[in-house]
Amino acid sequence: MSTKKWVYFFGGGQTDGQESERNLVGGKGANLAEMVAIGIPVPPGFTITTEACVEFYSNNEQWVEGLEDQVKENIARLEETMGAKFGDKENPLLVSVRSGARVSMPGMMDTVLNLGLNDVTVEALAKKSNNPRFAWDSYRRFIQMYGDVVMGVDHDLFETALAKKREEQGVQLDNELSVEALQELVAEYKEIIKSSAGELFPSEPFEQLRGAIDAVFRSWNTPRAIRYRQINHIPHDWGTAVNVQTMVFGNMGDNSGTGVAFTRDPATGENVFYGEYLMNAQGEDVVAGIRTPHPIADLAEEMPEVYQELVDIYKKLENHYREMQDVEFTIQEGKLWMLQTRAGKRTAAAAVRMAVEMVEEGLIDKQTAVLRVDPAQLDQLLHPMIDPDVKYEAIATGLPASPGAAAGRIVFTAEEAEVWAERGETVILVRNETSPEDIGGMDVAEGILTARGGMTSHAAVVARGMGKCCVAGCSAAQISETDKTLTFGSTVLKEGDWITLNGTTGEVIVGQVPMVEAQVGGNFGTLMSWADEYRALGIRTNADTPQDAQTALDFGAEGIGLTRTEHMFFEGDRINAVRQMIFASDKEGREEALAKILPYQRDDFIGIFKTMKGLPVTIRLLDPPLHEFVPQDQATIERLADSMGLSVEAMKARIESLEEINPMLGHRGCRLGVTYPEIYAMQARAIFEAVAELAKEGTTVLPEVMIPLVGTVQELQITKKIVIDVAKAVMKETGVEFEYLVGTMIEIPRACLVADQIAEEAGFFSFGTNDLTQMGFGFSRDDAGTFLPSYVEQGILERDPFQSLDQTGIGSLVKIGVEKGRSTNPSLKIGVCGEHGGDPASIEFFHKVGLDYVSCSPYRVPIARLAAAQANIRNPR
Amino acid sequence: MSTKKWVYFFGGGQTDGQESERNLVGGKGANLAEMVAIGIPVPPGFTITTEACVEFYSNNEQWVEGLEDQVKENIARLEETMGAKFGDKENPLLVSVRSGARVSMPGMMDTVLNLGLNDVTVEALAKKSNNPRFAWDSYRRFIQMYGDVVMGVDHDLFETALAKKREEQGVQLDNELSVEALQELVAEYKEIIKSSAGELFPSEPFEQLRGAIDAVFRSWNTPRAIRYRQINHIPHDWGTAVNVQTMVFGNMGDNSGTGVAFTRDPATGENVFYGEYLMNAQGEDVVAGIRTPHPIADLAEEMPEVYQELVDIYKKLENHYREMQDVEFTIQEGKLWMLQTRAGKRTAAAAVRMAVEMVEEGLIDKQTAVLRVDPAQLDQLLHPMIDPDVKYEAIATGLPASPGAAAGRIVFTAEEAEVWAERGETVILVRNETSPEDIGGMDVAEGILTARGGMTSHAAVVARGMGKCCVAGCSAAQISETDKTLTFGSTVLKEGDWITLNGTTGEVIVGQVPMVEAQVGGNFGTLMSWADEYRALGIRTNADTPQDAQTALDFGAEGIGLTRTEHMFFEGDRINAVRQMIFASDKEGREEALAKILPYQRDDFIGIFKTMKGLPVTIRLLDPPLHEFVPQDQATIERLADSMGLSVEAMKARIESLEEINPMLGHRGCRLGVTYPEIYAMQARAIFEAVAELAKEGTTVLPEVMIPLVGTVQELQITKKIVIDVAKAVMKETGVEFEYLVGTMIEIPRACLVADQIAEEAGFFSFGTNDLTQMGFGFSRDDAGTFLPSYVEQGILERDPFQSLDQTGIGSLVKIGVEKGRSTNPSLKIGVCGEHGGDPASIEFFHKVGLDYVSCSPYRVPIARLAAAQANIRNPR
Repeated sequence: MSTKKWVYFFGGGQTDGQESERNLVGGKGANLAEMVAIGIPVPPGFTITTEACVEFYSNNEQWVEGLEDQVKENIARLEETMGAKFGDKENPLLVSVRSGARVSMPGMMDTVLNLGLNDVTVEALAKKSNNPRFAWDSYRRFIQMYGDVVMGVDHDLFETALAKKREEQGVQLDNELSVEALQELVAEYKEIIKSSAGELFPSEPFEQLRGAIDAVFRSWNTPRAIRYRQINHIPHDWGTAVNVQTMVFGNMGDNSGTGVAFTRDPATGENVFYGEYLMNAQGEDVVAGIRTPHPIADLAEEMPEVYQELVDIYKKLENHYREMQDVEFTIQEGKLWMLQTRAGKRTAAAAVRMAVEMVEEGLIDKQTAVLRVDPAQLDQLLHPMIDPDVKYEAIATGLPASPGAAAGRIVFTAEEAEVWAERGETVILVRNETSPEDIGGMDVAEGILTARGGMTSHAAVVARGMGKCCVAGCSAAQISETDKTLTFGSTVLKEGDWITLNGTTGEVIVGQVPMVEAQVGGNFGTLMSWADEYRALGIRTNADTPQDAQTALDFGAEGIGLTRTEHMFFEGDRINAVRQMIFASDKEGREEALAKILPYQRDDFIGIFKTMKGLPVTIRLLDPPLHEFVPQDQATIERLADSMGLSVEAMKARIESLEEINPMLGHRGCRLGVTYPEIYAMQARAIFEAVAELAKEGTTVLPEVMIPLVGTVQELQITKKIVIDVAKAVMKETGVEFEYLVGTMIEIPRACLVADQIAEEAGFFSFGTNDLTQMGFGFSRDDAGTFLPSYVEQGILERDPFQSLDQTGIGSLVKIGVEKGRSTNPSLKIGVCGEHGGDPASIEFFHKVGLDYVSCSPYRVPIARLAAAQANIRNPR
Repeated sequence: MSTKKWVYFFGGGQTDGQESERNLVGGKGANLAEMVAIGIPVPPGFTITTEACVEFYSNNEQWVEGLEDQVKENIARLEETMGAKFGDKENPLLVSVRSGARVSMPGMMDTVLNLGLNDVTVEALAKKSNNPRFAWDSYRRFIQMYGDVVMGVDHDLFETALAKKREEQGVQLDNELSVEALQELVAEYKEIIKSSAGELFPSEPFEQLRGAIDAVFRSWNTPRAIRYRQINHIPHDWGTAVNVQTMVFGNMGDNSGTGVAFTRDPATGENVFYGEYLMNAQGEDVVAGIRTPHPIADLAEEMPEVYQELVDIYKKLENHYREMQDVEFTIQEGKLWMLQTRAGKRTAAAAVRMAVEMVEEGLIDKQTAVLRVDPAQLDQLLHPMIDPDVKYEAIATGLPASPGAAAGRIVFTAEEAEVWAERGETVILVRNETSPEDIGGMDVAEGILTARGGMTSHAAVVARGMGKCCVAGCSAAQISETDKTLTFGSTVLKEGDWITLNGTTGEVIVGQVPMVEAQVGGNFGTLMSWADEYRALGIRTNADTPQDAQTALDFGAEGIGLTRTEHMFFEGDRINAVRQMIFASDKEGREEALAKILPYQRDDFIGIFKTMKGLPVTIRLLDPPLHEFVPQDQATIERLADSMGLSVEAMKARIESLEEINPMLGHRGCRLGVTYPEIYAMQARAIFEAVAELAKEGTTVLPEVMIPLVGTVQELQITKKIVIDVAKAVMKETGVEFEYLVGTMIEIPRACLVADQIAEEAGFFSFGTNDLTQMGFGFSRDDAGTFLPSYVEQGILERDPFQSLDQTGIGSLVKIGVEKGRSTNPSLKIGVCGEHGGDPASIEFFHKVGLDYVSCSPYRVPIARLAAAQANIRNPR
């Protein structure tokens, strides 16, 4: 067998062609070679392939045949290119050894710098740099790093010796140590290695190199690296490449320096060269913050030629990659070297501006621009946020349940929230958990903080729907409603105290932190319009009020995918009629109470229909179990009992009889419609009377009546008949003919499995992936907080399945549902109205399985538009 | 198009060959023709096909072309055969018109008797029978029946006129009316029809016949018939056949009579001719119970020749059908006519005895014998039952949750049950619902009655496991623990009062009703051994104690498919250690408490392993949420707080923190094993130490450790590792090498969808179809009582899906799980341990999808053996 190529050279304007072999030489190796190939000065070096690493593991941790020869050949080539030699007394070759996998695994793997130094070459470096302190400090650092990384010596042993030396010398900082002290340290370090590792520190450079390469190979399989790959779903058999590169030093005097820069402003996206540098410094000094770096523009005065070269390079790089680059450079004795280039991180605002401007500049096309912006990041733009220039300290962190930020005064009940808001106060509602009764208070509050509940708890779902900041499940918060206190450890906050929530991060801050408002500029609109050109999925919204509907329309929604009618049941006096209905002893009593609710519901629908101006509106009939509407406090129970002519005991007994052990799996959804058909009949009447009334005013409405929680086709047949009968009756009574659909939510696992039967009766399907996830996994979202976070942390679940659809498991139920549904009803319109309708990864999945639309909360509509466009660009229909 | 054959003749020893065309002429028509074909005297007649009925509906309720001609031809043939004529003054032809679908739909459809009577023929019948009262009464009945069934006249109008006539005549009974009175009635009836239906009663016999045939066709589509077909899944497009048959009369004098008989004793199965008859009577007189019929043997003296003919016929029929027959006959003026034959209903004991004896007699083969007994019926044989000879009245009926019967004195708590039982009392435990804390009381009680909960409530499941009678969800029962009263309407029972439960029917009876003990005789054993020859499925049992295991072994179990370890946690003092473990503040504290539980668990396993003598034993690690073990009563909470050095408030707060909104979907199963690995480690240690100890005694054990509630392969990986590590440790500590398997329950919908991944880690699968049904349907079995019964009643669900697997929906999850599981692990052993493992229909399904075994409660093992045999005979593997 002829020997494979295991090593690729770069430098001196030459490469072995590896710049297009990213999987073979890793991301870092490919970018270095690519810079060399386009004529950018890069310290020469070579890359050992990921395949060599894989062979290392399949070969009992021995180098594959041919690797040693090839490394030696490349060292020779490097020596020739640099005019320097391993171990040379005058001009020694020094190298760095770094890992470089196919994808970045930041901080996971090992690096060795200054390799090649020994008692001989350190003197040469001292002479050449004319800086013995620099040379001996570099040597000291190398031995320490090598001892730790390659020879497995406890890092603390070196640190202890170093601290002792500082003490002996009476200095505070390492760089105040004298050359003599550093020389003593080098000797002491060697002793530490000898006694701790049982072998000598190797002074022969090739031996050093062999050890460092082994160490980088091995760092691929440390427990933390394995864990990282498990969590990030990176295959274990990829292996890492190893980059051996000539050392350059930015700390060799006043004509040396180092810096980092971005080809555009990563905060605003403005097309300016942006960055900072330090003279006579190493990379870590810029990051460490001990010395204050200078703005990159200053370099134009300090070293005009170098600056001009750098400007030319950044432009070349951006034009080459057609993407904003984040570069690192070092100036060694007046000579500029580029150490790294990669796509730069950016804020959402910057991402949008750069994408749009690069199209205008002709650098990229619109499709690329649409792909450039991370949809999830857009959330930043759509909500007020904490002023990024303000430093603050969080007292606790909960779940980032609804993005944006808010500051306000603490209140502990929904009633108080309404009272305080009434008199013009800005409030944050603080609750152990919220319930549907709290809707009014949530509506007037600036933000919501709860101590319990997860990302899909009531507080979180409602807040997201309202586009309102929410931090949920903040377990460090102890809330006493009785005492009206909110306690974090020893800090006790009282009603009226100021608090700030960051719903994007989950942080809770005591006091009032300044905000910046959402700014949805012109570039945003431009990008969104491009996204709409590419997407195949329709985008609807989940909206329960005309206000929500208007917000969603402004954000580009094309219809309503979910109107929850139960939220309407709580408003104002209606709840009394609702309770009267629940506790009526017969159908007649229920119908009497329902007749009182009917005009309210009709007005609700008129409001929403008017706002939506003829766009489709999907209305879900009553879904939650009746006990959610029942009062819990003594006073209300007494009042209710009185109004219904019942004793308090009898009322309590009735309330108790409604309780359920597992309400999630109980008497709710269409099960209510089947057992109490009069409820659905009232709701259908409210819908159709609203439609008829608007029709008379000349407004056409397309209502889509959605039956929830269907698990059998018979349930749909029975409840659909209720709706159709009412529609016929209303048409007859009003003399108005109107169009409507009756469809169903698919949210029960069984519904997916019998979707072929259900589809024969359904006007549309809308996947309710929240409940489908709960039942498919057997996870109650109200209770999963006790184990779900640890499941995500341990990598049992990649992500919280309530945030991003579990595509393997729950996704295959969705797929089965779509396939079976279309098998009997090929033109079936299918959407999704769960929380996942606003999650980019889930949206891509829904696009791929062939859904017609997704529906999400109003503030996620732009995210969904962009994600849908990206999905269709990546997987065209 | 040539006309199809719509009508088939039978009689005079001739048929048109329709006896083999059951779908065309219906069950009744086929049997009548079959009797004629083998030379048995049957009143001649003809059958109109089901196809003619189908055509009637597709032809706007008109007769299909050719039908009228064929009916007329057959009437002519009938007249010729009988020597009688429609409307004849001397010898008129009278017929009955009856429905006869492919399958029996008892009581659903219409019948007309005595057709052909009018003012002329009634006189002929009077003369011919020499019994004018009989003739006029027949005519009166015919007009009434025809008016009601064919002409749609309100039945009450006739009854009112009849009652008035009795009053006028001063008589009590219809048959005391004089001929004159009957003649007046006939005239009045005709007037009723005229004024009510707006047309005259038709006197022309063919016109009468046409009307009657139409009426039978139409009765196929009455709402109640449609409903019946929906519930019983009979296709609506089958249609019904119509049988027109010469009338014979058993009430034409003392040499006439009628009777019903069975070819063997339907109660005992004894091979004797069994039945009863009445002279000078019609069929309904035998049934009505006004006159007492005579045993069939008496006929041998009364009419020896007829009796001998009847004996010859019954033998002929049984030999022909090779099955016990239920026959109806009429003797008209000394001539025997057979009106019907069909397979007779029988008790379980009779079914077993007949099946075995018919094999011994050479009448059927063993395979047929195995198919002859309804597995579900076997339950009758395996439990004590109420003496069938005793008449009793039930005060209420609940769900037949666990079969058998029991009488005892009422107690209201588990503690009282134990106290009363201790002093030798026989008790029935009466509770609103039971909880795991009640196990001790349930164990000593003869039976259990609960007011709430369904067929798979705690009480029901545990009682079935114990083979103990249980009536659950008896909503008419009002139970006050405080007052110690059990109230049914106005009847108030107190502690110590006697009560009897019939768990087979769900009946509750006040007082003590006599019982008969279970009798599992020799025939039963014979039949079971034949079943074992045919079945492919293995049969295991669900058993938590050595006693249960022994019962199951005696019934033929081949291993344990499910041992629930949590039941063991409640026994004796262990619960204290369990609670200590739950409330420990750290892992160390939990391990300390677990160390106390370990020896108990080890002993539990030793007991079960010894009983099972080397047969496989599947042990499920801890499944329920921890809050199930937490005390609820103040005294116990105080004691526990004290023992743990906590305040009562702190203890209550901890208890509260364990509460869950949907415990079914909460922190349980392997989720506990993942978050508290020490619990599973302790249980694994208990198992393996027991195995090692028995190995030293020379007993080999095959433990199968089962991880519950797995939804992701990672959960299985993590918990499996805990078990394997303990196994290795125990092998090392004891020096004993042993075999074991680690497998998983498949009970979460997602697990079925990712079964390919899970199977790669699993030693076996065991479907937990209870939870799979709960999650797949979104039904909490604890709460579904509010709507599930109405779902079954309305035909939304064919059967309670917790009793019989929903094959379409949940079954397809099982199928997916099996297919995916075997796709990556072809030799994977797969069983089921849900309640469905003992349900015959579900067992057939499990056989068909390729499971290796089913596991059921001990008392259902024989049922499962028989059902498995039948499944394999019907669908050979």
